[in-house]
Amino acid sequence: MGRIVQKYGGSSVADAESIKRVAKRIVATRQLGHDVVVVISAMGDTTDDLMDLALKVSPQPPPRELDMLLTAGERMSAALLAMAIADQGLKARSLTGSQAGIITTGTHGNARIIDITPGRITKALEKGDIVIVAGFQGVAQDTKDVTTLGRGASDTTAVALAASLGADHCEIYTDVDGVFTADPRIVPSARRIPRISYETMLEMAACGAKILHLRCVEYARREHVKVHVRSSFTDKDGTWVEDWEEGSQMEQAIISGVAHDRSEAKITIVGVPDVVGEAARIFEAVAAADINIDMIVQNVSAVETHRTDISFTLPKTDGATAIAALRQLQDELGFSDILYDDRIGKVSVVGVGMRSHPGVTARFFTALAEVGVNIEMISTSEIRISVVVDTDDVDRAVAAAHTAFGLDAEEEAVVYAGTGR
Amino acid sequence: MGRIVQKYGGSSVADAESIKRVAKRIVATRQLGHDVVVVISAMGDTTDDLMDLALKVSPQPPPRELDMLLTAGERMSAALLAMAIADQGLKARSLTGSQAGIITTGTHGNARIIDITPGRITKALEKGDIVIVAGFQGVAQDTKDVTTLGRGASDTTAVALAASLGADHCEIYTDVDGVFTADPRIVPSARRIPRISYETMLEMAACGAKILHLRCVEYARREHVKVHVRSSFTDKDGTWVEDWEEGSQMEQAIISGVAHDRSEAKITIVGVPDVVGEAARIFEAVAAADINIDMIVQNVSAVETHRTDISFTLPKTDGATAIAALRQLQDELGFSDILYDDRIGKVSVVGVGMRSHPGVTARFFTALAEVGVNIEMISTSEIRISVVVDTDDVDRAVAAAHTAFGLDAEEEAVVYAGTGR
Repeated sequence: MGRIVQKYGGSSVADAESIKRVAKRIVATRQLGHDVVVVISAMGDTTDDLMDLALKVSPQPPPRELDMLLTAGERMSAALLAMAIADQGLKARSLTGSQAGIITTGTHGNARIIDITPGRITKALEKGDIVIVAGFQGVAQDTKDVTTLGRGASDTTAVALAASLGADHCEIYTDVDGVFTADPRIVPSARRIPRISYETMLEMAACGAKILHLRCVEYARREHVKVHVRSSFTDKDGTWVEDWEEGSQMEQAIISGVAHDRSEAKITIVGVPDVVGEAARIFEAVAAADINIDMIVQNVSAVETHRTDISFTLPKTDGATAIAALRQLQDELGFSDILYDDRIGKVSVVGVGMRSHPGVTARFFTALAEVGVNIEMISTSEIRISVVVDTDDVDRAVAAAHTAFGLDAEEEAVVYAGTGR
Repeated sequence: MGRIVQKYGGSSVADAESIKRVAKRIVATRQLGHDVVVVISAMGDTTDDLMDLALKVSPQPPPRELDMLLTAGERMSAALLAMAIADQGLKARSLTGSQAGIITTGTHGNARIIDITPGRITKALEKGDIVIVAGFQGVAQDTKDVTTLGRGASDTTAVALAASLGADHCEIYTDVDGVFTADPRIVPSARRIPRISYETMLEMAACGAKILHLRCVEYARREHVKVHVRSSFTDKDGTWVEDWEEGSQMEQAIISGVAHDRSEAKITIVGVPDVVGEAARIFEAVAAADINIDMIVQNVSAVETHRTDISFTLPKTDGATAIAALRQLQDELGFSDILYDDRIGKVSVVGVGMRSHPGVTARFFTALAEVGVNIEMISTSEIRISVVVDTDDVDRAVAAAHTAFGLDAEEEAVVYAGTGR
């Protein structure tokens, strides 16, 4: 019998009823003879509600105290889930991140896991208990203060535990049947991808596929943890993310999927003097503001000679900060203007297949042209081509690409309510 | 400058506004130059709400998991209070019971404090921080599991911390101006007691004065912690509970106060064979059911010869359990019947003054007779006389005794909204 780590999101434990339903699924897994460790998120909107409360008390709550407050959410859902399991006759034990041995950096609000000491988990498993771990949280190695791991963190907690516990695999439960060739909400004919490599999944996540968070996939690849992404509403097989050479199959699709992302904005710095080191200075300034840049393009300025225009994309949420940081450099660097556009979307085709198939770019751009979508920016990696288009063109672009690369399925995909994260 | 421990109850932090108000008071104390450690209860009805949620998930939640769930309440209020203080410009740091070094027994739901290792508190105080400790909780010495301390526990946490930190005194904030000669809700002319000894306070608490919990007073007496019971709504001095010989003052009132308690019920075992050891067997049975008995009276049976009737009082909540335990003994012991009466109330006059004044009993009973109150049971200690009367007679009895012992004040006492506990 194996050892399995399961992760359930907030919408799977939104109320007493859904907690009982999740408990049933966990009990069923245990009764197959597996060791079961469950990572759980906070109930439904708990985290948002707590955040609202914090902001009522203080417009800028200290991060340490915010972590102390927010981690109460997973602590409650973990205890309630353990009760529900006990009510179904099996022994369960809830553990906070700290009790579970999730050792992190001291960066409150966005800590990183640096070690896992799962002594209490393994002891409980040896006694035959089911272990419920509060996700999203850990304890700082130096200060012993409670920390949170930032966005998508419960998935990362689950994968990290699976690695340190030598689990057979890690099941991430969500509200769709797995990873799809495109967002089924946009492309009804999207197909479930039964099996996908870490590399492809990483590109998909980086390009906006919300189903798995980037950090979680990175961790899984590094530690070789098999991840099974599946729906908590069915028993169907989902998507297996694992070590695998996609090229190895016959009639393998050239690309694995089409991802899109509307969370970014575009900043264009107009008329940058064409002098060595100017670009570096600009991106140093942006990096100094702790902003992650995605795509960058540089062109000879359309308007001025001996000058270039530099455009880059970044999270919308960082737009204001970036512009402020750049304005301070305007006189020093002597560029003429800063343009900001947050009505953009990124559409990407991803797949190792394109390595061996020339003309992928051509086919992608033709498909976009045929539905009248104008391309604003282009960036490529070995297994990905991304374009920035007008936010209103995103859906059309995704659908066109999905069809152009022969990904459309016969029947439509099922989409469940809720978000599952 | 001194070191002060303050405790605020759930109604003092019921919402964002009241949290800010409490923060102001704490900041003011800190700005006087004192080290400040605050023990906080869960916000308003949080604990009840969490309990309801637990019961929806499982009719009999495992105590360990219940403690894990309920302790989230104080964790949240502690973090929010720390944020509110930070928002007013001072540094504050919230600690869970475990982080604060509250080491307890492993009895979930009713753990006892067995040690306090306040290293993290003192370190924070040395840095000039205000420390906010989540009340009502600790960590089990053996299992390292989270525990709760049972009723009135936040007060006990505060007094225990005051003792281990060598605080000048412990301030317990509530919704009345202090300890009164009687419940001002029943006797509007009740007086605030400016100063009271541990012994008298213990008897008052044991007789139903809700303002301080018995365990807290016991702890304060054992560790000689000065306790200042006061209102969180004013700056007025409240009641000082401390080492003090009440007899030492001139014109000292014979009794300090009149307490009442409607939480008990009376069980009468009719026709117990008048044989050595019968009573012992009965109370062994009750004790085995883990029930605390208060008053006991035994009389020769009114109805049967060579038999006695035994009556005792116990918490209403334990009535059913006790009767079940006794029914099992009926044939074995051969008593004829069990009578149960939960429409009773206990009225007690308390004060060291009665040591030196004969005739207190007479004056008490006369006062009750004059207002037509019938006495069902009597029990006395060196500084207390308690009677059990019909629940409907309690208010009249309290008022009559209060007047008879000259405790009535000229002006009426102020009663604030809320419960403060």
